[in-house]
Amino acid sequence: MPEQVIKRNFIFDTIRRVFIKYGYLPIETPVMENLSTLTGKYGEEGDKLLFKVLNNGDFLAKADETALTNRDSNALIASISKRGLRYDLTVPFARYVVMYQNDLAFPFKRYAIAPVWRADRPQKGRYQEFYQCDVDVVGSNSLMYEAELVQIYDEVFAKLNIPVVIRVNNRKVLKGIAEVVGAEERFIDFVAALDKLDKIGIEGIRKELLDKNFDEESIKRIESFLSQWVNDTGLYDSDFMFKQLDKLENALKGNEIGKLGNNEVRKVMGYLSNNGFSLNTENKVVPDATLARGLGYYTGCIFEVVVDKEKCPQISMGSIGGGGRYDDLTGIFGMPGMSGVGISFGAERIYDVMEELNLFPGHNPESLSVLIMALNEVDDHQSKLNHDYAFKVLTQLRAAGINADLYPEPAKLKKQMNYANARKVPYVILIGDNEMQSGNLAFKNMESGEQQSLSIEQIINNLLMC
Amino acid sequence: MPEQVIKRNFIFDTIRRVFIKYGYLPIETPVMENLSTLTGKYGEEGDKLLFKVLNNGDFLAKADETALTNRDSNALIASISKRGLRYDLTVPFARYVVMYQNDLAFPFKRYAIAPVWRADRPQKGRYQEFYQCDVDVVGSNSLMYEAELVQIYDEVFAKLNIPVVIRVNNRKVLKGIAEVVGAEERFIDFVAALDKLDKIGIEGIRKELLDKNFDEESIKRIESFLSQWVNDTGLYDSDFMFKQLDKLENALKGNEIGKLGNNEVRKVMGYLSNNGFSLNTENKVVPDATLARGLGYYTGCIFEVVVDKEKCPQISMGSIGGGGRYDDLTGIFGMPGMSGVGISFGAERIYDVMEELNLFPGHNPESLSVLIMALNEVDDHQSKLNHDYAFKVLTQLRAAGINADLYPEPAKLKKQMNYANARKVPYVILIGDNEMQSGNLAFKNMESGEQQSLSIEQIINNLLMC
Repeated sequence: MPEQVIKRNFIFDTIRRVFIKYGYLPIETPVMENLSTLTGKYGEEGDKLLFKVLNNGDFLAKADETALTNRDSNALIASISKRGLRYDLTVPFARYVVMYQNDLAFPFKRYAIAPVWRADRPQKGRYQEFYQCDVDVVGSNSLMYEAELVQIYDEVFAKLNIPVVIRVNNRKVLKGIAEVVGAEERFIDFVAALDKLDKIGIEGIRKELLDKNFDEESIKRIESFLSQWVNDTGLYDSDFMFKQLDKLENALKGNEIGKLGNNEVRKVMGYLSNNGFSLNTENKVVPDATLARGLGYYTGCIFEVVVDKEKCPQISMGSIGGGGRYDDLTGIFGMPGMSGVGISFGAERIYDVMEELNLFPGHNPESLSVLIMALNEVDDHQSKLNHDYAFKVLTQLRAAGINADLYPEPAKLKKQMNYANARKVPYVILIGDNEMQSGNLAFKNMESGEQQSLSIEQIINNLLMC
Repeated sequence: MPEQVIKRNFIFDTIRRVFIKYGYLPIETPVMENLSTLTGKYGEEGDKLLFKVLNNGDFLAKADETALTNRDSNALIASISKRGLRYDLTVPFARYVVMYQNDLAFPFKRYAIAPVWRADRPQKGRYQEFYQCDVDVVGSNSLMYEAELVQIYDEVFAKLNIPVVIRVNNRKVLKGIAEVVGAEERFIDFVAALDKLDKIGIEGIRKELLDKNFDEESIKRIESFLSQWVNDTGLYDSDFMFKQLDKLENALKGNEIGKLGNNEVRKVMGYLSNNGFSLNTENKVVPDATLARGLGYYTGCIFEVVVDKEKCPQISMGSIGGGGRYDDLTGIFGMPGMSGVGISFGAERIYDVMEELNLFPGHNPESLSVLIMALNEVDDHQSKLNHDYAFKVLTQLRAAGINADLYPEPAKLKKQMNYANARKVPYVILIGDNEMQSGNLAFKNMESGEQQSLSIEQIINNLLMC
């Protein structure tokens, strides 16, 4: 519905303006990608969730006969479907970077706000078609970009009036922790369990690790480590940040890779706290050694954004943004060693949070400001003159840049008022014979009900000021 | 590529702002529609050009056995594919209006700017994925909307600096002409031939009609009628407009339906010339009795926009916009009698015209305004201080709302300059040890090569003013 599109556009426009200010460029890739580009990139489950597009024309002519005879749907796909709908914006971006590597200037900074498709069973908050909103830079290892992406989160959410906590960690820190607690052989399982900490707590993690056959000794070490970090929420000034990093350094007991990761986070925090940038006071940046982020391909800093629960206890919502650094985005397409870092915004969840906190602007600049009504309701010559006069007023309002409309034909006042209400218009202009003669029009505030008799110039001034 | 996306967004944003001012609302429909919604709406050829999406899971389990056995691709589709990619924005709009008829306030005014898909063989200027840009109002017969849509064309093309001729006709006029020349039994063929007048001239139409077995008598009458209108181009003031309409009325010799149509055009022209609206002087509105528009579903006024050949003789391009009134948009979905009128913009062609006439703004507000370079190229402590200082400057520029970036690491000046050139940035800021000490930074105009030593505040002021 229009109201939802307008609200969503408000979110996207806010985000887009920040992306542009930070020097990111828009690219667009086709909705359909070759299936060979998509399959194998999202695991077996992901492959099943890809929408496949049937080849045009006589597709059975080239169909795999064995698969047909065996009625083997899976085996048949490759021979009757060359293309699929994109599943995310990351794989098409990697394909794009490899394809146009000779035309791009690196570091290449791009943003994309576009729909993607997954054949999930639709349910509340999960749709088969939904928007992703990504910003990435590839071709540089500089930690400046990590800092810049945190600044982008901070600025966007400040502009949307959502107070957030931006959690920062580093995959190398997680590797270090895994080594310190003796879980390095089971890194993936360890990270998968850690990823659920917010939801299931330390007790839940114990159960999870037991299920995965971690031994009691490891689990105790992991619990002991985690217990240092949980509940450390509340005070997030930059002193706190650096104390957390010192504490982590101690806890890592000289572990090399862990220290490397911790120093990367320290450098990012340094950019944010020493370089003339103070975070918007509503938002907090927190180094958080327990932040895991599920996705396998992160190799350096990782980020996650949640609504600040202290300030908005009524909101119960998972992360509304996340991202990180990946050392090898384009390796799968034959272009290794291209480091990148990126973040994304969870548009649907941000929308829900803004609805719940009532943060959308009351009158959106994209909707109608005023509706004109011609009051002669019988379709005769006089009413025609009346409507023509109203059209002239309409044209003047629009020429002044005002979003304006006119009820299109003679009709009862009640019917026209119903239309004005349905369109949620804040003002109406009523024009009858008296108004035509005097040139003073009835200008009505639909919320207060207040009505004034004003010249067209006065009306234009009023509307331009609100 | 980013440059193309930015240029296309410039066109879309310009159009969108005008749509909004005229009170149109955005709606979005899913990219995938049920095939039952799409098939049969675009003729047999259209059905072939629909992209069909394979059902997920074991699609062969429910496949039509007979079709499978016969290897009949066409007959198989219905059982293995429920959905397809939309072919245009009109049919989904009609489906939407019927589905939400109880939630919409009529007249319902909507715009949509979105991609559609057709399995055409790709060639220059014709893509399988391309954007449509539509604006429609349904639920009213008022000719005010025809006038408003002409105003929208005029305003959009004036804002894009493309001088255009907006041709207006009416399907009822064509019916009248067909009756007057005795071609009423062959109306579709007559309109199809007329539609090619621009390309093939009167001689070509004679051939076309002969091929369709029109008799010599009818052809002569059609030729004689057409010859009154061809070459009547050049002077398009409002006197001329109404003279054309009078001339048409005579030529129609009292034909009822023709007169009805002519009076509708007259009323639209009346709105445009008598109601305080003067067309942008660059553009022309012309009643043109020979304008046909191929599509079958138009029933009232029809529109077509072409680049003004007198002003831009170098442009050889078909119509860059078109539309009209249809009396029954939603009848195919079981909701008859819903009159509507709409126009669309040919975004790809508009893009090409703007490239050819060099009309895109030299520096787009969406691209980068300034790039900062730290001049210490060795990666030591001093260079780190230098780069940190540059990041601080970067943060200040962005806080002032300037699209700014910083080369991410110590590097040779030449390398950084190459990057600045590749990003087509109009200004750079150079920061070395001297600049850090004095606080006066080197600010260089990349086009003129001129370089000044300025404080950060002066630089911000300079950038905000250009």
